[in-house]
Amino acid sequence: MPQEPYSWRHKDLLDVDQLSREDVFHLLNTAASFHEINLRPVKKAPVLKGKSIILFFAEDSTRTKTSFDIAGKRLSADTFGLSKSGSSMQKGESLKDTSLTLEAMHPDIIVIRHNCSGAAKFLADRLNCSIVNAGDGWHAHPTQALLDCFTLYRHWGDAFAGKTVLIVGDCAHSRVFRSNVQLLSSLGVNVRVCAPRTLLPAGLSQWPIEVFHNLDDALPGVDIVMCLRLQLERMAAGLLPDMREYSARYCLNPRHLELANPGVKVMHPGPIMRGTDVSAQIADSPESLILTQVESGVAVRMAVLFLLATRTENGGRA
Amino acid sequence: MPQEPYSWRHKDLLDVDQLSREDVFHLLNTAASFHEINLRPVKKAPVLKGKSIILFFAEDSTRTKTSFDIAGKRLSADTFGLSKSGSSMQKGESLKDTSLTLEAMHPDIIVIRHNCSGAAKFLADRLNCSIVNAGDGWHAHPTQALLDCFTLYRHWGDAFAGKTVLIVGDCAHSRVFRSNVQLLSSLGVNVRVCAPRTLLPAGLSQWPIEVFHNLDDALPGVDIVMCLRLQLERMAAGLLPDMREYSARYCLNPRHLELANPGVKVMHPGPIMRGTDVSAQIADSPESLILTQVESGVAVRMAVLFLLATRTENGGRA
Amino acid sequence: MPQEPYSWRHKDLLDVDQLSREDVFHLLNTAASFHEINLRPVKKAPVLKGKSIILFFAEDSTRTKTSFDIAGKRLSADTFGLSKSGSSMQKGESLKDTSLTLEAMHPDIIVIRHNCSGAAKFLADRLNCSIVNAGDGWHAHPTQALLDCFTLYRHWGDAFAGKTVLIVGDCAHSRVFRSNVQLLSSLGVNVRVCAPRTLLPAGLSQWPIEVFHNLDDALPGVDIVMCLRLQLERMAAGLLPDMREYSARYCLNPRHLELANPGVKVMHPGPIMRGTDVSAQIADSPESLILTQVESGVAVRMAVLFLLATRTENGGRA
Repeated sequence: MPQEPYSWRHKDLLDVDQLSREDVFHLLNTAASFHEINLRPVKKAPVLKGKSIILFFAEDSTRTKTSFDIAGKRLSADTFGLSKSGSSMQKGESLKDTSLTLEAMHPDIIVIRHNCSGAAKFLADRLNCSIVNAGDGWHAHPTQALLDCFTLYRHWGDAFAGKTVLIVGDCAHSRVFRSNVQLLSSLGVNVRVCAPRTLLPAGLSQWPIEVFHNLDDALPGVDIVMCLRLQLERMAAGLLPDMREYSARYCLNPRHLELANPGVKVMHPGPIMRGTDVSAQIADSPESLILTQVESGVAVRMAVLFLLATRTENGGRA
Repeated sequence: MPQEPYSWRHKDLLDVDQLSREDVFHLLNTAASFHEINLRPVKKAPVLKGKSIILFFAEDSTRTKTSFDIAGKRLSADTFGLSKSGSSMQKGESLKDTSLTLEAMHPDIIVIRHNCSGAAKFLADRLNCSIVNAGDGWHAHPTQALLDCFTLYRHWGDAFAGKTVLIVGDCAHSRVFRSNVQLLSSLGVNVRVCAPRTLLPAGLSQWPIEVFHNLDDALPGVDIVMCLRLQLERMAAGLLPDMREYSARYCLNPRHLELANPGVKVMHPGPIMRGTDVSAQIADSPESLILTQVESGVAVRMAVLFLLATRTENGGRA
Repeated sequence: MPQEPYSWRHKDLLDVDQLSREDVFHLLNTAASFHEINLRPVKKAPVLKGKSIILFFAEDSTRTKTSFDIAGKRLSADTFGLSKSGSSMQKGESLKDTSLTLEAMHPDIIVIRHNCSGAAKFLADRLNCSIVNAGDGWHAHPTQALLDCFTLYRHWGDAFAGKTVLIVGDCAHSRVFRSNVQLLSSLGVNVRVCAPRTLLPAGLSQWPIEVFHNLDDALPGVDIVMCLRLQLERMAAGLLPDMREYSARYCLNPRHLELANPGVKVMHPGPIMRGTDVSAQIADSPESLILTQVESGVAVRMAVLFLLATRTENGGRA
């Protein structure tokens, strides 16, 4: 029986759980080929010429927005930035009407960052153009999880199964955490978390992870430590008694790495807080993959934009 | 005697009253041909390559700015956004000096949105580059009137004469109202308005329109209802006693449409306020042309930018 | 012995003192050839296609940012604007980490405006991509000095030696002043300054300039008067007793020009304050080169971006 050839079938990228293993590796391989463009003197491919991509960032995030902007333009797409301030949402327009208005201008893709969980799905359900979730509330941040995955792919190849990743810090309020656990687990990675109880999400016992509260206990056997950013507003919310105590217990330093597996590497989605999330020595050490993650981000977003914008040519919608 | 062939002769687009009937239909036909580009997979024409367009929005309007930005880039122009915040006008520079400075960078077109009536004409009188008025105070908003007109042209063809358009809402403070009355009247459309007395402009008796204060009286015989946005600051200014009462009397709902001509359609320049200007049922109904207007906006702005930027090649200045 | 052919060797443009006389004239000639592009109907050259230029303006300056943006796009580069607001620096990220993050996205050039003296050098020392200083604190503003120089080059040709330039106004807090004195002196121009004692920098006696406090004394023999912008915050700081008195003594008016050499011209880096720095009559007179400076700015920035982005092809780094 002849096998159907692979084709990317997703109209939108809302979360990593929509992707099959085949989708993930197709995306990683696409990212790898685009990554090479980023290293050339002429960083430009004509593949998305005449495509319009709206970057609708209702929540500030220069880093992610710039990464998508660079990704789009290097593939020759036209990009259009929109922030909440200055948008009609400030005049009382609903998200539904704002998004219908944007769609009427015939973009191929809308990339949306929004502080409400579900905002990207809300658009995807209503619009014909492709939607990329660039972070919605505490829910999901699939391109961050995919760029972390691509960073590991560049490091490990496809040998994900059996590796151990430890995620440290504020998991409760992190969309990066949720998307990463889903994606890494699906690839056979053992995931551990280490955080104070107040920074762990409810219902954790049903997740495929091991929970620790002490770094020294969590580190033996770990191949990758992924630190999350401590958001200072957590202090205000009373979830942490004292910043200094938090850093003393959870800020990753070189001594910690000696407890992990040989060759252990450190990741962080950025922006880093030196001395709070991660020590300055770690950030500047060869063990850090933090800048590799940023670099991977452009390549992964090129791949996402390319696969979505050319999907009809590849074999229709899903 | 041989007739001179038509050529676009305007350096600037300041208001619709500068346009002859021939100009208007030439612009509509140009918009129609560009509209087709917006429906293609590759939405790009090289006609304005190497042209520089400055989008100088001293008043916020993401919708209009994005529409011009998309229009410019789809014709391969380079676009440059400028807002008031961050501009030298905040350091005390005059509009004259700001605009002379911008011109010294050799843009082909400056698109200006400004809260002072006459700002666009002020620039047009002083600069050699083309000026597009994207809304000046309460005065004019020609591309909005032209996109409304193009929306009707797609609906009616050129059979404007004898049709009846009813404009509902805050006419006193609306540049959209002024520009639309001028343009539609010049094409033979009967224009009616319906609003509380406090939201009607002074001197209305000299305009070629019929005035109503009650929707039920105004609607019989109407082909198009054009709702305007109620600006909440009008309440603060004491022009309206009560928002609920206003909505009860002037918010368009499905019952109203039964009073109008068969096939009546509804327009609104956006952003809409559901339940205040227009009911949610109307906004989401097949009678609504609201999203068609947004779509038309990109095509009309492509036409405006194209005609202005290529006018010297078409036969010199005016 | 065969002479080595000239090649641009600088990775970064941090200040004018890094440039040899040969570098300066090579840059001016490059600017002259790009200036011609700006006067064409199609203002576009493909020389920087596929290059990525980040415009990182941690301090507002629409004028300078737009000038760089236009310069980059006219050479077909992709440009990416970044402001401080919305950047991760507001989340507590250090300038070091922000700049490493930006570099990881593989820009060819980062143009930086920052309120800290030395910020551009800080980046240049740490990053492999080219850095252009677009103004750092009170320290340097090399592209402004170069565009002033190019303005004079268009006026004088290469006959700089023996000419006299008078700089009037707030020299103490002006990076434009510092960069201009260095560059003009190196080309053999006699530089004079005229300002109240409180607006002169310390240690002025070691600079190659003549100091005046009275315009009437300073003007005889002058070929160019370069006015600087009075920053109103100087008043608040107690450096000036009274604005009216300052203007009466230092605001350049037509009577002053009669004291200078025949053919004297007036320059100002903008934004101008009519009636404070320079009279309205002067600003609008044929003696003003102020708009020529703005025009020169685009050409000079095209030259700077071109020379930096193509330097490896021209013969490696320095």
